[in-house]
Amino acid sequence: MVLVPSIPVTQDPAAAADVAAARDGETQLSKFSQTLQHHQQQQQARVASSGNKEADTVDHEKTVGHAERSQWLTTGLEPPSTWREVADYLRGFGLPSGRELSSLNKKPVTQRVACFLKAMFPVLQWCRSYKLTQFKNDLMSGLTLASLCIPQSIGYATLAKLDPQYGLYTSVVPPLIYAVMGTSKELAIGPVAVVSMLISSMVSRIVNPGAEPALYRNLVLTATFFAGVFQAVSGLLRLGFLVDFLSHAALVGFMAGAAVIIGFQQLKGLLGITHFTNRTDVVSVVKSVCRSFHHDSWNPYNFLLGSAFLSFILITRFLGRRNKKFFFLAAISPLISVILATVLVFVTRADEHGVKIIKHIKGGLNPISAQQLQFTSPYIGEVARVGLIIGAVALTEAMAVGRSFAAIKGYHLDGNKEMVAMGFTNIIGSITSCYTATGSFSRTAVNFSAGCETPVSNIVMAITVLMALQLFTRLLYYTPTAILASIILAALPGLIDLHEAYHIWKVDKMDFLACIGAFVGVLFVSVEIGLLVAVTVSFLKIILISIQPGIETLGRLPGTDMFCNVDQYPMAIMIPGVMVVRFKSSLLCFANANFIRERIMEWIGRGDEGERKIDDFQTTQLIILDLSNLMSIDTSGIASLEELHKNLVSLGVEMAIVNPKWQVSHKLRLTNLMSKIGGKVFLTIKDAIDACPNAKLASI
Amino acid sequence: MVLVPSIPVTQDPAAAADVAAARDGETQLSKFSQTLQHHQQQQQARVASSGNKEADTVDHEKTVGHAERSQWLTTGLEPPSTWREVADYLRGFGLPSGRELSSLNKKPVTQRVACFLKAMFPVLQWCRSYKLTQFKNDLMSGLTLASLCIPQSIGYATLAKLDPQYGLYTSVVPPLIYAVMGTSKELAIGPVAVVSMLISSMVSRIVNPGAEPALYRNLVLTATFFAGVFQAVSGLLRLGFLVDFLSHAALVGFMAGAAVIIGFQQLKGLLGITHFTNRTDVVSVVKSVCRSFHHDSWNPYNFLLGSAFLSFILITRFLGRRNKKFFFLAAISPLISVILATVLVFVTRADEHGVKIIKHIKGGLNPISAQQLQFTSPYIGEVARVGLIIGAVALTEAMAVGRSFAAIKGYHLDGNKEMVAMGFTNIIGSITSCYTATGSFSRTAVNFSAGCETPVSNIVMAITVLMALQLFTRLLYYTPTAILASIILAALPGLIDLHEAYHIWKVDKMDFLACIGAFVGVLFVSVEIGLLVAVTVSFLKIILISIQPGIETLGRLPGTDMFCNVDQYPMAIMIPGVMVVRFKSSLLCFANANFIRERIMEWIGRGDEGERKIDDFQTTQLIILDLSNLMSIDTSGIASLEELHKNLVSLGVEMAIVNPKWQVSHKLRLTNLMSKIGGKVFLTIKDAIDACPNAKLASI
Repeated sequence: MVLVPSIPVTQDPAAAADVAAARDGETQLSKFSQTLQHHQQQQQARVASSGNKEADTVDHEKTVGHAERSQWLTTGLEPPSTWREVADYLRGFGLPSGRELSSLNKKPVTQRVACFLKAMFPVLQWCRSYKLTQFKNDLMSGLTLASLCIPQSIGYATLAKLDPQYGLYTSVVPPLIYAVMGTSKELAIGPVAVVSMLISSMVSRIVNPGAEPALYRNLVLTATFFAGVFQAVSGLLRLGFLVDFLSHAALVGFMAGAAVIIGFQQLKGLLGITHFTNRTDVVSVVKSVCRSFHHDSWNPYNFLLGSAFLSFILITRFLGRRNKKFFFLAAISPLISVILATVLVFVTRADEHGVKIIKHIKGGLNPISAQQLQFTSPYIGEVARVGLIIGAVALTEAMAVGRSFAAIKGYHLDGNKEMVAMGFTNIIGSITSCYTATGSFSRTAVNFSAGCETPVSNIVMAITVLMALQLFTRLLYYTPTAILASIILAALPGLIDLHEAYHIWKVDKMDFLACIGAFVGVLFVSVEIGLLVAVTVSFLKIILISIQPGIETLGRLPGTDMFCNVDQYPMAIMIPGVMVVRFKSSLLCFANANFIRERIMEWIGRGDEGERKIDDFQTTQLIILDLSNLMSIDTSGIASLEELHKNLVSLGVEMAIVNPKWQVSHKLRLTNLMSKIGGKVFLTIKDAIDACPNAKLASI
Repeated sequence: MVLVPSIPVTQDPAAAADVAAARDGETQLSKFSQTLQHHQQQQQARVASSGNKEADTVDHEKTVGHAERSQWLTTGLEPPSTWREVADYLRGFGLPSGRELSSLNKKPVTQRVACFLKAMFPVLQWCRSYKLTQFKNDLMSGLTLASLCIPQSIGYATLAKLDPQYGLYTSVVPPLIYAVMGTSKELAIGPVAVVSMLISSMVSRIVNPGAEPALYRNLVLTATFFAGVFQAVSGLLRLGFLVDFLSHAALVGFMAGAAVIIGFQQLKGLLGITHFTNRTDVVSVVKSVCRSFHHDSWNPYNFLLGSAFLSFILITRFLGRRNKKFFFLAAISPLISVILATVLVFVTRADEHGVKIIKHIKGGLNPISAQQLQFTSPYIGEVARVGLIIGAVALTEAMAVGRSFAAIKGYHLDGNKEMVAMGFTNIIGSITSCYTATGSFSRTAVNFSAGCETPVSNIVMAITVLMALQLFTRLLYYTPTAILASIILAALPGLIDLHEAYHIWKVDKMDFLACIGAFVGVLFVSVEIGLLVAVTVSFLKIILISIQPGIETLGRLPGTDMFCNVDQYPMAIMIPGVMVVRFKSSLLCFANANFIRERIMEWIGRGDEGERKIDDFQTTQLIILDLSNLMSIDTSGIASLEELHKNLVSLGVEMAIVNPKWQVSHKLRLTNLMSKIGGKVFLTIKDAIDACPNAKLASI
């Protein structure tokens, strides 16, 4: 780090001259590049006109020497400015791009409207070619889906600390909206475990769901509204990439942690515990369970019932995996369990012996809840924050699920359209008494396996759930809550992906750290901390990789003019008297510039590096810095290159720079470094060796 | 982001087969590479033995085809593991390296001790060849330094809210310690403005210096001790690079912000205000000044005196810059001001008319303060944190100043030795009643200009200050405080480097943002926030550059086999039917992989990219991904490459990968991606074009 001294009482003429030279040099250089601009433009025009007919240029090619090539580099065009880069970047995902708009403008109004509608509602595209055979498959998979969805929805609603009917409501409107707006064919929309747990853990911190159930419910609906707005706006602004900021590894860890937590929370239902903690971390939950055991406030019948049906569901699933014949049995086993358990309780009147039952579920259509959204509540800020986090997690889950099934079927999922669809799904959901819906992991798999072909299966499921809400809610009066716990527990293993965790460990240790960080954070602290840890570790990894302060020695590969890392390619040949060095990092900046400079000096000074001790190093006469890895350089980096050059000159070693990227070469020019190192900037390493008289050329 | 589906109720045989194939493939591959290992090792041995005599390999070179080269890449050695990389990295800056130790072990004990002592105390090296002529220069510069140092030290002590003698103490012991341990020849050690301000602003937040002056002083000494320990330990562990984390741009902004704040605080002394705010931000200070004006609690005589001597100092400095003759006048003008002002006040008894004076300064040697360090205080944690921040800032300033002057004289400053020297300076300082000392910006410049040759000038200065402490402190009784404010104000312009700020703006807009962030943060919030903003922006820049989601099209440069960005090199020739694409970022990871994949698909799908519309793009038959920029790839990146390949295959376009770096090619192999894309991995773009039958080769 060198501060150019503009010190009050200094009077060193050399330093002053140096600074003045730097400033003059810059203006000189800009003139120089102006005069070259003309030549440049001519050349550009020529190449553009000759285009693909390269025969024209062959004569020219022969005459191109390293001097001219190095001039291409040192006097090239200016790279796009920072603003231009940002604008380009934004254009990439901004509102409909200029191209799209201009192609639209050429068409008549009706076509433009049709285009827009088709883009907004993919249903308009696929419904024309919809066939009866497709409907048969969709009907079958929709009914299967509904049989799984009804018990799961009731279970997830209790997980979200809402009345059971809200889970069912969430399985009616959102699937219908998604069916007309979404681009995924398999995604089963509705309440999911992780989001339910997340929403209850975050909103219960604002109000107590036990004390103020109506306010709690309204805040949940408001959070859903915000989640929808966040999703829709992100999609419309084409900010789909934001979803990617929760890395794959982090998601694996987060999902597993959430699954374990949800599993522990199900102990409440499975054991029929009355007083249970509101907190989500494992320590609190285990303490709460222990306390219940201690005070005998749990009921063995609940446990018996729950674990019996859990075994039933798991066994049918195992059979279904082994033999395709049993697949439908596996899919509807939760519904069978509910029916059997309900009948059992009704017949034996087990509820009088301490078995907890659902009791009343309010039937009928989704009530309108627009007036219940709490926009004037004092909690609005917190609720908006909750909405943001839930929206992001819900989107990430839906995209992960949707993409993996789209990849199997070989079609592409448009991230931004998906975001808009999910956003409207939740916005409309929040005004029709639905809490946050997203793509369910387990149900999407069932939908896919049952052979769904289009989003019509979602519509079939929604209508079935609606009918159940209208007709059968009274039949669920005697359904034991332990059965809901079993159904939730049965869905959890799919969220824990040990194979993938092992795969991440094998491929990248830092990624695995992010995964474990998310897992431990969710498990022992809170859901938000888990997410925070995961995102922090992921970005820390990016920083560490970008500034890793290493250098590698390059050698020429036999049969080519290419220079590669001698450790990676043991067959690479090093040239006596010449040391070719490349930075391992992609940035030469404040954080690593000094370290790298010192390392190069050390390397030269000592003349050896472990195994690869070659005596010629001690008579190194030329150091070639291959800058091709560098994406960027900052003022500290430039200062350290300058200092390196000075140090090398004092040792009698020449220094040449090879192939700086556009931004880097521009900065080297701006700061006059190119002329300070005597213009020794080349396009290729071979050119640098050819041009430096000191280097022994025998070996080339 | 793709979650490999290990979903409970799934039964898709294709997907299962896919996963199984992936796992099998890996084991197969590892066997394959084992068999190749032998061949590899042979080849390696041959190259190593032939060494520089390349004639042997010429025959072989001719026969090397692209197939063999591609095999080098696909079946190469494993890259060093993460642990190995970390170990290598640590070895680079750990305690004395193995090499150093082994060379030491060969020598007898006395030589080893001598080596160690020479390394710890550079004075042992230069004192042998010390000459009388050098001493003459050092004496002169040391006396000049003392004349500037005495008034500045008193001023900075008041800035640190300590009694004036503590500033003088800090100019006695630290320069002596540094003189025997430091490696810089010019650095003038003692109290400095920024550190004084920083220490007072941070420790006053722990205890009120007005209410508990003794405790406050003890905490300042304790913080100094911690700062010293932090510096020494960092140096001994060779963590010198930590200093670099405060980037050059951030330091420029931070210094300027601190200078402005210190300037505003001097209004207290200059206006003779009695009640002044303890806070450091500009808003509080300006409010405090306005309140004083409003209540007439300021005194115009103070202002007159202060501004008169400020003008005197500034004019002499201006003269000194213009003409070397006046340099010494400029250097001693602060001392002259003090003497004149003191005489003036003594003669006119202006202190009775409201001119504030220093009054009593305790003379004598530095008292021992070891028993005053507060290790058992309840504030220990906070004080340690303060020590850490102050230690870092003091080090950064000293290194920046030291390095810039070392660069002018053309010698090298060993960062780690400097850290150890500064550390011991402050540790010993803290037990001899000194607060944090570091290299002063303005005094180092004076020392340099006065012609110092060795650290002896620091010793001369320390002895002079010591004599002043012993003999002349009583004479300073009538020195007006306004004169101290003038002296501090006069030193500030050197901290504000507008030229450098403009330079940063020109070179890098993001760096400038860090600079401005530090400036605004220090000015309007607090010193720590300023530092935090600067560090955050600096690292945010690293992340943004590393994940910038762009791609660039490459063309062949005439006369070479090299492919470069067609925007940077307009003369580059594109090959019809082949699109060569390189990622702009150095990482293909969760944050940009999907975006980049979508961009490539968009580019191909549309067949144009703004100006460079070439019809042949629409018949692109081969996409070559040049991975040479990629330092790292994570699971998301690999998944997106796989998806890209699938999408391209469905469009009938071939995809080839060129020149993945070591880590990247290893991961591609680990995840079996290399075989999934049909083994189309090549070392050079030319090889890829040669190997793909679909590509039109006419143009090569």
